[in-house]
Amino acid sequence: MANVLFLTNVLVVSLAMNMGLIWKISYDDEQTLTSKWSIHQNLHFHGYKNNIIQVEEEEARVSKRAHILPTTSSGAATDGWESLVINLDHGDPTMYEDFWKQKGEETTVVTSSWQHISYFSDIKNVCWFLEPVLVSAITRLHKVVGNAVTEGRNIVVGTGSSQLYQAALYALSPPNGSDPMNVVSAAPFYSSYPLMTDYLKSGLHKWAGDAYEFNKEQPYIELVTSPNNPDGFTRQEVVKGDKGILIHDLAYYWPQYTPILSPADYDIMLFTVSKSTGHAGSRIGWAVVKDREIAKKMTTFIEINTIGVSKDSQIRAAKILQAVSENQKEAESFFDYSYKLMAERWRKIREAVNKTELFSLPSFPAETCSFSGRTFGQLPAFAWLKCEGEVDDCEGFLRRHKILTRGGKHFGASMKYVRISMLSRENEFKLLTDRLPAIIS
Amino acid sequence: MANVLFLTNVLVVSLAMNMGLIWKISYDDEQTLTSKWSIHQNLHFHGYKNNIIQVEEEEARVSKRAHILPTTSSGAATDGWESLVINLDHGDPTMYEDFWKQKGEETTVVTSSWQHISYFSDIKNVCWFLEPVLVSAITRLHKVVGNAVTEGRNIVVGTGSSQLYQAALYALSPPNGSDPMNVVSAAPFYSSYPLMTDYLKSGLHKWAGDAYEFNKEQPYIELVTSPNNPDGFTRQEVVKGDKGILIHDLAYYWPQYTPILSPADYDIMLFTVSKSTGHAGSRIGWAVVKDREIAKKMTTFIEINTIGVSKDSQIRAAKILQAVSENQKEAESFFDYSYKLMAERWRKIREAVNKTELFSLPSFPAETCSFSGRTFGQLPAFAWLKCEGEVDDCEGFLRRHKILTRGGKHFGASMKYVRISMLSRENEFKLLTDRLPAIIS
Repeated sequence: MANVLFLTNVLVVSLAMNMGLIWKISYDDEQTLTSKWSIHQNLHFHGYKNNIIQVEEEEARVSKRAHILPTTSSGAATDGWESLVINLDHGDPTMYEDFWKQKGEETTVVTSSWQHISYFSDIKNVCWFLEPVLVSAITRLHKVVGNAVTEGRNIVVGTGSSQLYQAALYALSPPNGSDPMNVVSAAPFYSSYPLMTDYLKSGLHKWAGDAYEFNKEQPYIELVTSPNNPDGFTRQEVVKGDKGILIHDLAYYWPQYTPILSPADYDIMLFTVSKSTGHAGSRIGWAVVKDREIAKKMTTFIEINTIGVSKDSQIRAAKILQAVSENQKEAESFFDYSYKLMAERWRKIREAVNKTELFSLPSFPAETCSFSGRTFGQLPAFAWLKCEGEVDDCEGFLRRHKILTRGGKHFGASMKYVRISMLSRENEFKLLTDRLPAIIS
Repeated sequence: MANVLFLTNVLVVSLAMNMGLIWKISYDDEQTLTSKWSIHQNLHFHGYKNNIIQVEEEEARVSKRAHILPTTSSGAATDGWESLVINLDHGDPTMYEDFWKQKGEETTVVTSSWQHISYFSDIKNVCWFLEPVLVSAITRLHKVVGNAVTEGRNIVVGTGSSQLYQAALYALSPPNGSDPMNVVSAAPFYSSYPLMTDYLKSGLHKWAGDAYEFNKEQPYIELVTSPNNPDGFTRQEVVKGDKGILIHDLAYYWPQYTPILSPADYDIMLFTVSKSTGHAGSRIGWAVVKDREIAKKMTTFIEINTIGVSKDSQIRAAKILQAVSENQKEAESFFDYSYKLMAERWRKIREAVNKTELFSLPSFPAETCSFSGRTFGQLPAFAWLKCEGEVDDCEGFLRRHKILTRGGKHFGASMKYVRISMLSRENEFKLLTDRLPAIIS
């Protein structure tokens, strides 16, 4: 307690979100609540309220135990870093920032105030708010990488792939069904799917849980995330019913994360710049959709939801995707850079985990990438870490060691697992790989 | 029929959406469907499916009657313009484009590829994805104009004010209520409210119609749109119950549309750049919210719906709003320019309507604007036109004269009314004011 009284000011670095921010939590004034609330809001975006509260209490304890980090004294730095809370709960893709910092005018967007004023982009297109230049950039990049068929397909742009996921549910659920459409995905599934499906208590669709356990004789939508979030494995649909419709979330089907085996050719495929090039702040996703009527209905959803998608971000995403296609010819292309970085990070995290018996990581078979010609196993955007031995709550265990992760229960899986972002900035990742082997249970 | 056979190719200019586009409708190939569908999709964004089909059939008839417009022959232009379909169904604010074309670097945004990569903008803010520079620009502009109190309020940014409307419904509806929350607005109300409330068949809220007719002893949310869309009148709440919560949609509470009387100071106020500065393509709206908990819940909705709002558009909107505040000192400020243009357009449309006995427009009492010092009556973004005499379906009547508008029934009002956009480009507006007095019933 005396210790707590001395520590009226505690510095916490929320690393995965930081932008270099170090903010002060004071336990004796109103600011505490603000700061604490901000932490948890960010920690658990798309999480569950109840868990947020639990984390909040836990977090307060972590913070109170933390030491003061003298920002000006390098002498105390060693002690200081040990007390820092590393937030790797979400997948903020700041890892790519350094690559883009090397790039100049060819990726810079200049927008005059009279441009892109109208709601409309291309009235001849099913998706009337989709900028033609973005269509070109998307189809070209898929062709260069060879990860998706786009010929003869409809492209629908969304405010991130979250909006497109909801648009697809809207398009695939009968408007006048007697029951809401079942929505399933094989566990461990992306933690936001249940919430995005049910947050409005829609009469159109409802979350029906783990696809492995779905055995109703009813229509269903199965989400196939491949490579999978959180565990990185390549996936196929698992429900063997004949009343199913599939949505393929291919956010991570890019050559820095997985060997590209062939162009994906599914009915509805979702992609996003957040994970392909790291531009999460632009909120641009796209769907490649075979059926024109489905593409129309998805467009209708986005019309009602947000009357289209930011033109400014579409124009910027187009420029970035174009640059990625073009710089394939350069000495170090984006996919070269990002592949090497992911490979290096996975080497380091496996090395760190191998130094202790407390944790394990999944293994992936090596395959040859048709894009790069390299042979390698998956290099997922998240590490799906298991606490071995007697630790049953891996999230809580790591939290006590000041590593914030997302626990297995959010993904419909065991609490012995956590998901850790691999896409943070370098200093945060280094803290993780330094800290993991130093943990003594 | 012979006529139809000759007219296998018909040129239609959709003027309100045009960007100079002239596209070809061919009746003998697949392209027909594409083009027709595009028209109607745009015509009726946020409209109703059934009506879309009706319009589609009607439209085909209009198009078939229309003449070929030789784009290269100025000799045939007079005949050609008569056959053009003017689309003033929606409020695409292209009217402001000419103003922004005069502006230079001070409103130009330059974005490098490494900027705004993260999901996060300001983790200390309730709305963690809101760019601080946008907060400054918003609060400054409200202070300059004097149209809203922002001191001590929470700002939530949205992908247009449509998303904020849905966020507010989510925030104000009890998560575990036995019945969905009633949502009402006084007729004529904005045509998209019913659809945005009900499209997902939410168990949280349901559209309960015209506020004047709401007499249930149940909780309700009342939408107060002031100035009102479609009719331009200043409004107060109308339900006299004690179980109501209000949302104020103040999209048009700007000095080019209405005299500013005092800073609005309501619990939840919605604004958008689409109508204030005309940048609809950026999809940026904001809510000024008194209660911190409500602001949090609105933020949560946007988190789940789209994981935040385009940073690129936020940065751009900030620059534009800043420029509007700053150029108040210049010879012709944005609000000066836009006020004069609206005043001129209203003078012209009243002149056009006065030349015939077929139509009438609402009258507005003059009041003095605290911002400009001018005394004037409302200059709404839409003309709420009434067909006098025996015409019962004003939308259909005008459609036969190749003026596409949105009929009263979409707004919960009589079909003798239509809503006509006043925010189109100049040539489209001129066609309207030329054509209206020439109509003989």
